[in-house]
Amino acid sequence: MEAIPPIAVLKTRFARLTHLQDAAGVLHWDLSTVMPAGGAEARAAQLATLKAMAHELLTAPEVGDLLDAAEASPDADPWEAANLRAMRRQWRHATALPSDLVAAHAHACAACEMTWRRARAENDVAAVRAPLARVLTLTREIGQARAGVLGCDPYDALLDEFEPDARAAAIAPLFDRLAETLPGILDDALAAQGPAPTPPAGPFPADRQEALARRLMETLGFDFHHGRLDQSLHPFCGGVPDDVRITTRYDEADATGAIMAVLHETGHALYERGLPAAWRDQPVGRALGMSIHESQSLLIEMQACRSRAFLGWAAPLMAELLAGDPRAPGWDADTLHRLYTRVAPGLIRVDADEVTYPVHVILRFRLERAMIAGDLAVDDLPGAWREGMKDLLGLEVPTDRDGCLQDIHWYDGAFGYFPTYTLGAMTAAQLFQAAVAARPSIPEDLARGHFGPLLDWLRETVHEKGCLVTAPDLLTAATGRPLDPDVFLGHLRARYVERMGERAR
Amino acid sequence: MEAIPPIAVLKTRFARLTHLQDAAGVLHWDLSTVMPAGGAEARAAQLATLKAMAHELLTAPEVGDLLDAAEASPDADPWEAANLRAMRRQWRHATALPSDLVAAHAHACAACEMTWRRARAENDVAAVRAPLARVLTLTREIGQARAGVLGCDPYDALLDEFEPDARAAAIAPLFDRLAETLPGILDDALAAQGPAPTPPAGPFPADRQEALARRLMETLGFDFHHGRLDQSLHPFCGGVPDDVRITTRYDEADATGAIMAVLHETGHALYERGLPAAWRDQPVGRALGMSIHESQSLLIEMQACRSRAFLGWAAPLMAELLAGDPRAPGWDADTLHRLYTRVAPGLIRVDADEVTYPVHVILRFRLERAMIAGDLAVDDLPGAWREGMKDLLGLEVPTDRDGCLQDIHWYDGAFGYFPTYTLGAMTAAQLFQAAVAARPSIPEDLARGHFGPLLDWLRETVHEKGCLVTAPDLLTAATGRPLDPDVFLGHLRARYVERMGERAR
Repeated sequence: MEAIPPIAVLKTRFARLTHLQDAAGVLHWDLSTVMPAGGAEARAAQLATLKAMAHELLTAPEVGDLLDAAEASPDADPWEAANLRAMRRQWRHATALPSDLVAAHAHACAACEMTWRRARAENDVAAVRAPLARVLTLTREIGQARAGVLGCDPYDALLDEFEPDARAAAIAPLFDRLAETLPGILDDALAAQGPAPTPPAGPFPADRQEALARRLMETLGFDFHHGRLDQSLHPFCGGVPDDVRITTRYDEADATGAIMAVLHETGHALYERGLPAAWRDQPVGRALGMSIHESQSLLIEMQACRSRAFLGWAAPLMAELLAGDPRAPGWDADTLHRLYTRVAPGLIRVDADEVTYPVHVILRFRLERAMIAGDLAVDDLPGAWREGMKDLLGLEVPTDRDGCLQDIHWYDGAFGYFPTYTLGAMTAAQLFQAAVAARPSIPEDLARGHFGPLLDWLRETVHEKGCLVTAPDLLTAATGRPLDPDVFLGHLRARYVERMGERAR
Repeated sequence: MEAIPPIAVLKTRFARLTHLQDAAGVLHWDLSTVMPAGGAEARAAQLATLKAMAHELLTAPEVGDLLDAAEASPDADPWEAANLRAMRRQWRHATALPSDLVAAHAHACAACEMTWRRARAENDVAAVRAPLARVLTLTREIGQARAGVLGCDPYDALLDEFEPDARAAAIAPLFDRLAETLPGILDDALAAQGPAPTPPAGPFPADRQEALARRLMETLGFDFHHGRLDQSLHPFCGGVPDDVRITTRYDEADATGAIMAVLHETGHALYERGLPAAWRDQPVGRALGMSIHESQSLLIEMQACRSRAFLGWAAPLMAELLAGDPRAPGWDADTLHRLYTRVAPGLIRVDADEVTYPVHVILRFRLERAMIAGDLAVDDLPGAWREGMKDLLGLEVPTDRDGCLQDIHWYDGAFGYFPTYTLGAMTAAQLFQAAVAARPSIPEDLARGHFGPLLDWLRETVHEKGCLVTAPDLLTAATGRPLDPDVFLGHLRARYVERMGERAR
């Protein structure tokens, strides 16, 4: 090894790491889509071994020395420098934790998640108290161990896993601004939206929905030579950048959900596919973080595809492929737009509309931050949830099933993930505004089903950057300023209060 | 590690190895069935890393010491002892070769296979001469290196990879017996079989063929909770024992091929699925070798499913599911049986019938043995092929495409694989005879579509044994004697000359 520069040794090692993670990604796709149930145990063993071997590749004693040596003779090339930073970041996260803590946490999460599945079904919050308390205790220990290495608060250290360098102290004021403004927008939106439209009558056979989904994916720029569309219980985007696989599920009574879910996942897929090809198997070539990832799905879904402009183009296609006639009743663009921009405050995050979704996230952000800080005990969570829901959305929470039991995240140990949904929504609004400013034809392009100009801009500005710069730097370079909640709020007002793009009714 | 016994350390390591190989197995299935073409490069990188890491797990310096230590205090349990022997065997194969030879061979095979694809299409044997000569040179080096470790001839050392402990000197007399006897059986079979039956008229939509295939698989005992049926260019059996996946391809003009291919692969699948569950991730829990594997597919296909007894039961089901009427014309059991037992000597191995298939294998066995021994140069291969085909089957070979260019094996470096096809066919005949002797109801059971008694016998006698004993010992324990070509020849005579089971015409 004497003649090989440390960075070359590291790149070989990180390429292997990427291949192991990519292999695991394909195996995850398989288990969610096509694996027979009886294969679960064997698959778990395969994935556990891939994970363990990836961890060992990353934490082997020589890796720290190689990183030190590589950092001692920095490369002037910004991609090489960013790649080395991304390597160091992964190494820091992997070596921050003693392996017995990782194992105890994994074990506690598995047990808690299993209990939670039953507890949610039976609305039995008492049953999850002890297992969630155990998960929380170990998660706090993880946060503290990581915080020492990263030099930040324990909650920030958890957040950092999903969103590099994000800090709660910076997120809180943005979320406060949303929390104080959204109730007013919601009231105005409810007043402005008029009576509920009647959705087109089904049934819509799954194969027709799928044919439409494929057509729309192609319209957006999805390349089936490098990807797939399949079915799974929960829609997701998986696979690897050159073989990116999205899934959806079809409700034959109502096609609108599956179609929009596909467009959302296509946004994720276009991002993965657009990552810098020259750095495919290196850390700098992979996705930047969850907020940028979510911004790409929400930009496609919320900014582009729920616009009146795009729906004007899509409505006759949907009518033709779903109902067999481009002018089928109920499939006019106005009805479709009203359906896709309907606001209705409710208790369930995953069913929430674009205006109220951030409120759900803010509630969870505040509660999980307090739990990690030690300011909120698991025993007090159901009450704090009810109080928060009342304060933020004015809703009573009649059952814990529709309250603190609704999401899997905490019960599976994922603290620090929730904020990325709304960081992504704000980022999407700001990026879309910048895209239109840079290429003013974009709204007209979308009205003709032409996604090329928008996709080109996203590729140049976001996708092809990989992890070259941080998310805040990427956003500032793309939009001229840091993350600004007022862009997102302005978008919500225009769409839901001013009902822009709609014909007078 | 001081308190852990060496065998426990080895079992942990070999379990990991199994998981890596199983992960690669699922990824291979994926690339053959559902992977978009654009994912090929990324997949190759994933598989190469899994292979390299598996090789490193197996060849790490401590493994030899651990094996020595474990062997120094042998375990009285026969499974433990057999597991240790299987570990030592894998280690010996993996460490026998210098890594630069492995790399040079892999490179030469990839280049030669690529040239071969074009050369076969263009019938250009001159084009493959140099690349095949290079593959042969390196394969001979590999054979010599392995032979030194295993204490056998170079050709045997190659054979050993596919069929543990098999030796050409033991195979040759068995094959000679076939070669001298088959021409007479063939002549008699051609005289006995009468005019060619007219196959049922299609088209047969792929979805109907698939529905029939699934029904037949279930009849045979295939458990879809632990497996799948899909489509691929070439039928195969892949996946892992608890998630065993077979594939086929459908020709809408003729359903008979796809159905029989599915039954063949189901035989492989039942073997994998029946391997000893308690040893899933250890070497002793895996398939014994290619001749036993092929015996399980050929027993199901040739011995059981091409029998008049089984086809009597299957014919109305095939007629119903393919033609919509259990009494559809052309679907009577006699016609079907005559179709499925038609003999017709030809130039192409993969199209050969049960009587002439061994002749194709024997030709290849003799030629490849001579090539490895240095007695046949690549330049002389086309002529030797033509001569052999004339001698063995009395056929002229008008083009190399239908001669020495037809099979991928040698061009991809697989010398020593061919004999296992015919070892498998002979083993299948002998095992089936023993099964019927042990459970005389089996022919009647098959005539009712009941595979339970046959499958139970196979599980107890073959599948559940894993690698507990060698293939010869397994066969002797199951049938009371070593491999005897006359059992296979007797089967051929009964079926093709005496036309047993057929009604008088």
